[in-house]
Amino acid sequence: MNIGEKSLKLHEITKGKISIKSKVDVVDKESLSLAYTPGVAEPCKRIKEDKNNIYKYTSKGNMVAVVTDGSAVLGLGDIGADAALPVMEGKAILFKEFADIDSFPICINSKDVDTIVNTVKLISSSFGGINLEDISAPRCFEIEERLKKELDIPVFHDDQHGTAIVVLAGLLNSARLLKRELKSFKIVINGAGAAGIAICKLLLKVGIKDIIVCDSKGAIYKGREGLNWVKEEISHITNPREEKGTLKDIIKGKDVFIGVSAPKVLTGDMIQSMNDEPIIFALSNPIPEIMPDVAKRYGAKIVATGRSDFSNQINNVLAFPGIFRGALDAKAKFINDDMKIAAAHAIASIIEDDELNSDYIIPDPFDKRVVKRVSEAVKSIING
Amino acid sequence: MNIGEKSLKLHEITKGKISIKSKVDVVDKESLSLAYTPGVAEPCKRIKEDKNNIYKYTSKGNMVAVVTDGSAVLGLGDIGADAALPVMEGKAILFKEFADIDSFPICINSKDVDTIVNTVKLISSSFGGINLEDISAPRCFEIEERLKKELDIPVFHDDQHGTAIVVLAGLLNSARLLKRELKSFKIVINGAGAAGIAICKLLLKVGIKDIIVCDSKGAIYKGREGLNWVKEEISHITNPREEKGTLKDIIKGKDVFIGVSAPKVLTGDMIQSMNDEPIIFALSNPIPEIMPDVAKRYGAKIVATGRSDFSNQINNVLAFPGIFRGALDAKAKFINDDMKIAAAHAIASIIEDDELNSDYIIPDPFDKRVVKRVSEAVKSIING
Repeated sequence: MNIGEKSLKLHEITKGKISIKSKVDVVDKESLSLAYTPGVAEPCKRIKEDKNNIYKYTSKGNMVAVVTDGSAVLGLGDIGADAALPVMEGKAILFKEFADIDSFPICINSKDVDTIVNTVKLISSSFGGINLEDISAPRCFEIEERLKKELDIPVFHDDQHGTAIVVLAGLLNSARLLKRELKSFKIVINGAGAAGIAICKLLLKVGIKDIIVCDSKGAIYKGREGLNWVKEEISHITNPREEKGTLKDIIKGKDVFIGVSAPKVLTGDMIQSMNDEPIIFALSNPIPEIMPDVAKRYGAKIVATGRSDFSNQINNVLAFPGIFRGALDAKAKFINDDMKIAAAHAIASIIEDDELNSDYIIPDPFDKRVVKRVSEAVKSIING
Repeated sequence: MNIGEKSLKLHEITKGKISIKSKVDVVDKESLSLAYTPGVAEPCKRIKEDKNNIYKYTSKGNMVAVVTDGSAVLGLGDIGADAALPVMEGKAILFKEFADIDSFPICINSKDVDTIVNTVKLISSSFGGINLEDISAPRCFEIEERLKKELDIPVFHDDQHGTAIVVLAGLLNSARLLKRELKSFKIVINGAGAAGIAICKLLLKVGIKDIIVCDSKGAIYKGREGLNWVKEEISHITNPREEKGTLKDIIKGKDVFIGVSAPKVLTGDMIQSMNDEPIIFALSNPIPEIMPDVAKRYGAKIVATGRSDFSNQINNVLAFPGIFRGALDAKAKFINDDMKIAAAHAIASIIEDDELNSDYIIPDPFDKRVVKRVSEAVKSIING
């Protein structure tokens, strides 16, 4: 059986991946009267008196909604709410497995921004955090921004920020390994979807100035025709020399290629046109922008991909469990850039100087130290 | 500590009552690739091809949403979505404990019928059934009717039908004990909220013809001024002699009193004005319409209440777990009156002829046989 068939079998046997567990026993009249009526009236009253008591007497404080509209599901595209459910259940069990966070899939059967925002707001009582997942750009940006403004619980679009955090961690360790200044990197990001935009913004935030974002039409520059509102914004804060052209033109003389685009769009020749010791993050999944062995043959110094069968896997699971664990533990009302940057440093710091090498700039996703260190870094930002 | 204080303490220690449990292990790259990317794409594709596959590959088929707007929470009234969460979590663990059904609390922060209906529809992908809870009348009737029409999964307002089913079970056994014909009972129902209306309709459905519903203004009769649309409907299908007056007038010469109203509204004198061997179901909780000892002193032959510290507890937990277990197992698209009536007979049948007595017309809520027998009765209706 191939991996798809094995996965089907697994899902069929278990009939999905999540179930509910009761934290209290209800085995007799007394326990029923405490967990349910009439005793339960008391915690209800306390929450009515002070809404913060909801964290004290309910599961809200450890419960995250995994919210999607099924419009941009990994490698499958717009498959809708129903078909997205297996991915959301998968995400839910990753939350549980990696950070002991309870989470529940909410698949919203609408693509309308207002409807999605309102629905999440309407059902937010049960949740201490919102993880947005697999929502297509540029709607994902607006949905996240509005929810961040209108809710008082952390909202985090993992496809954007999870990826951006792990990419930053990889760049921090690349700079350390190559004894380069992070801010000196000249970077081209190929792909202007959720991940590309978020990576760009986080890298700008840490002070990297020389970034060009390309989409399928080439470099995004000030004044380019037909840009959507996000790309328009990007055109004003990147591409300082206003370079124009396709990836082939733009990548010349750059230090770092970050691909969040499509299979095989990067060639060996392009790598050879880059600066010395080029860094290649080819994150298209499952087929990267260039295969690691080819990239290395053409001179790539460091290669990372999204795949678990190559070294240096850029895997969001290094970020989101610890981010949410820290935010929930500290009762944060939001997740901001400082928290994301602290998380990236925490991930990078797992690898000691004497372990660091071109095949080990990113920790293993199953390294148990990661969640703990990330969550502590996030908490330390919130608690000052 | 009193029960409220004990309940507070319990809720504080456990921080709520529900958590998520993963049904599959994710401990290494291989298991991650099956439960999540890239393997998970396969069940997604299968659901995209045929939406019924969602039952095969996800947790939907055993997952019920416990939906409220917090407008009519047991004994507390309109406390809103946040404050209702402890009750909904309580309901969720009852589903788990009694019928191994996974369920999740959805507290909707709106009282608007359209908004509630639309929200439930928008998030219904994850759920194989909808249990409506603690929504005030008459909105609850419209919300349930619309959801039943617009969704293809079972929708059940427990405050209505759960109560109605157990009341019918109690009446079936009362008739058996007193060697009366069920249909011959003359019944007064005091209270025209969710439970009162549903009890009335279910009793009509089994062929009882002599029913009068009273609200706080007295008997509901054809042409009474200021009736809401539900009471208007009731006025046309009950009260065959068009009796008018308060409960005191109406209860004279009746066989059965069913109170879903308010504490202490029933007096001993009223019971004395009833027919021989009067049956009193005083379901106001925690303080019934009349205390059982008082009712008996004034001649009540059978008394049931909603309380666990008296005999004959009318407890919804006798109905909803088995109803949903049967409906989910049979992949029912709805829960209809035949299924409810079958459930009532199943509950009543737990008590054998030689066990039946005036203090034992309703089985114990913790009687393990109930869920099994109810679910099988429900399934047998669906499967013909």
